[in-house]
Amino acid sequence: MRILLIGAGGVGNAIAKIAARRSFYETIVVGDYDPARAEATVEWIRARHGQHVASRFTATRIDASDPDSVAAVAREHRATHVMNAVEPKFVESIFAGAFAAGADYLDMAMSLSHPHPTDPYARTGIKLGDAQFAQAGVWEAAGRLALVGMGVEPGLSDVFARYAADELFSHIQELGTRDGANLVVRDDEGNEIFAPSFSIWTTIEECLNPPVIWEKDRGWYTTPPFSEPEVFDFPEGIGEVECVNVEHEEVLLMPRWLDAERVTFKYGLGDEFIGVLKTLHLLGLDSTDPIRVRSTAGPVEVAPRDVVAAALPDPATIGPRMTGKTCAGVQVTGTGTDGLPRSVYLYHVADNEWTMREYDAQCVVWQTALNPVIALELLATGTWSGTGILGPEAFPARPYLELMQRPEADGGYGQAWGLREP
Amino acid sequence: MRILLIGAGGVGNAIAKIAARRSFYETIVVGDYDPARAEATVEWIRARHGQHVASRFTATRIDASDPDSVAAVAREHRATHVMNAVEPKFVESIFAGAFAAGADYLDMAMSLSHPHPTDPYARTGIKLGDAQFAQAGVWEAAGRLALVGMGVEPGLSDVFARYAADELFSHIQELGTRDGANLVVRDDEGNEIFAPSFSIWTTIEECLNPPVIWEKDRGWYTTPPFSEPEVFDFPEGIGEVECVNVEHEEVLLMPRWLDAERVTFKYGLGDEFIGVLKTLHLLGLDSTDPIRVRSTAGPVEVAPRDVVAAALPDPATIGPRMTGKTCAGVQVTGTGTDGLPRSVYLYHVADNEWTMREYDAQCVVWQTALNPVIALELLATGTWSGTGILGPEAFPARPYLELMQRPEADGGYGQAWGLREP
Repeated sequence: MRILLIGAGGVGNAIAKIAARRSFYETIVVGDYDPARAEATVEWIRARHGQHVASRFTATRIDASDPDSVAAVAREHRATHVMNAVEPKFVESIFAGAFAAGADYLDMAMSLSHPHPTDPYARTGIKLGDAQFAQAGVWEAAGRLALVGMGVEPGLSDVFARYAADELFSHIQELGTRDGANLVVRDDEGNEIFAPSFSIWTTIEECLNPPVIWEKDRGWYTTPPFSEPEVFDFPEGIGEVECVNVEHEEVLLMPRWLDAERVTFKYGLGDEFIGVLKTLHLLGLDSTDPIRVRSTAGPVEVAPRDVVAAALPDPATIGPRMTGKTCAGVQVTGTGTDGLPRSVYLYHVADNEWTMREYDAQCVVWQTALNPVIALELLATGTWSGTGILGPEAFPARPYLELMQRPEADGGYGQAWGLREP
Repeated sequence: MRILLIGAGGVGNAIAKIAARRSFYETIVVGDYDPARAEATVEWIRARHGQHVASRFTATRIDASDPDSVAAVAREHRATHVMNAVEPKFVESIFAGAFAAGADYLDMAMSLSHPHPTDPYARTGIKLGDAQFAQAGVWEAAGRLALVGMGVEPGLSDVFARYAADELFSHIQELGTRDGANLVVRDDEGNEIFAPSFSIWTTIEECLNPPVIWEKDRGWYTTPPFSEPEVFDFPEGIGEVECVNVEHEEVLLMPRWLDAERVTFKYGLGDEFIGVLKTLHLLGLDSTDPIRVRSTAGPVEVAPRDVVAAALPDPATIGPRMTGKTCAGVQVTGTGTDGLPRSVYLYHVADNEWTMREYDAQCVVWQTALNPVIALELLATGTWSGTGILGPEAFPARPYLELMQRPEADGGYGQAWGLREP
């Protein structure tokens, strides 16, 4: 397996660092629009693991927005797999470039949605991933695989859902992905500060888009933002966090392969963050349309959302000042294999102190990066295989969870996952 | 009396329109940095009242930031009084220019404060008006008058406080200015929108500065923003509004002339607006320091607060889409002249539909503009007189309130005020 990893930002950087401890691939080419960023990733690997590991990595420049650039770099390095680790707005160009180069493709977020033009808070318009699934026939005919939504959420959450369907339930009422954390960021004086652990730009996009829900007798539909608030009790000391419906890939993926009455995604944003997002929307500060603003250099045109992002600490820099854990998982309700009502929460927790110590990566980013590496390893060994556009739930879950949990000393990833049952 | 009115923005424009119905002065020169704005004010007066009224008005250009420009225009027009109706950041330059030209001076907001460098939420630094009161000796020696803080709040509120001290109370426990409104702005479809009726830039400045409180045994001191929240029930159908301490001139003015145990100012911002201001502060979007932001024309430097102001509707444009009333007043508690405990709220209410119909001015702006016109008339007739730096409470209140309330047909302003007692 020869991997072209596109993007050496937070998640791409962590993918390379996690993969550096594995041996299932022949080479990884780290491509970024800023080649210095890709070099820095390879340099970290060299410093931590030595030249024999770093020699399997190459840094290069790539333009993710240009399918020709993607295809050219993939061909040059004879990539068998293109791993997309950049912002979702580049999904379609990378997806096309990988196909042109004859490589298989993986991503962690799917092509973007567009709300319904007249009824956005009730009906779907163009859905997440629609642009990719529209190409399913072409990929199948070519015998190529695109494994889409293969991060932690979507990704591990979909694996958990498949596991529940295969082994724990005879009938599923709801597959409810629930994501929450108790992360706190402090300034140099030790005071808590407001500093999201992920891009505020992307979070606004996710949270202010109409959330999508799937029901068997109704199909996909949307609601207003922040609908169906629910206090969810997260495990391992994280505790109760207010969660609301958010548009997310799981809701588009799971119903394609798994049988359930209802599929939802709720994000544990917490009261404060929900309030912040509502206020930004109220004031028009979520907008990506440039407005005219006075400046000392005369009037300038800026998008308010870019200003909000620029005013906050860079999420890439807050890892050392952050404490706490993040949890990703799926709450499954229905009828157990024994015919009795059952409700379980399948989850994985990442602790920021541990991920910083082991990988110099903050936990939200690291947890996302872990999963595509596991998936690539399963594809490399042939444990997972397929063609067309497939989600993680299209593949058997047990070998995935076994490889993830097995101790590193025994060739696994040493990452325990949990099953909580009342 | 020959008046140089500086500023033809919202309040300056309304001052000219209100004065156009009066005859106590010889001429009013309307000066603005943008002479077209001053012309527009005179043009409105011509259209509404005819050439015989408009002939008493002259439009001119003036640079409020330059004392020499202020003095030159004042001298050219032989101004006896300079009426400052621009942003408070120009107080010191206009104040100096008026003195240089030998004119008396009035304003509606005093020179700006600077927080205490090490203990901002407990101790005062440079207080509102300090730069002006420092010149009191010079103005007194020259026999000139500066009447400071003569809008509605400060202004009418101080007149009410003087009235309470003179006629209603033998001992005052607290002079508590309380300001609230039930204004609603709607978009073209009739939906309520977030659109402050006053400059968000100035409101952020007022509300995030440390609020100041005066106590007889302690003097002036400060608290954190939004301290001592209180639900105040405003009269004439406005109802309950959440009020919090805000830095305001009344607290600096009243104790200099009136005897009270405590002086406070609370602003009825309401839950939603307080939440918005807290969020802007949390995200650093209240800042006036430019930050680097990406734009289609490359990186630019903008102050987040300027972006917030630019994203909201211009307060000058919302009058026609606004409904509701605004109330300014003082809650006075203490011992009545009969020796019994007493608590009264003295207030004035302006209704936006009425101010729009009569003056093409939204009610918050109009209510502010009304009071300096009344004060100028009392100075012109000699009912009020004095030298040095004086607040409204330094003058007798009864003639002011009588002139304000007397019907227009009888030579008054026809503006009823209220006294509410439990």
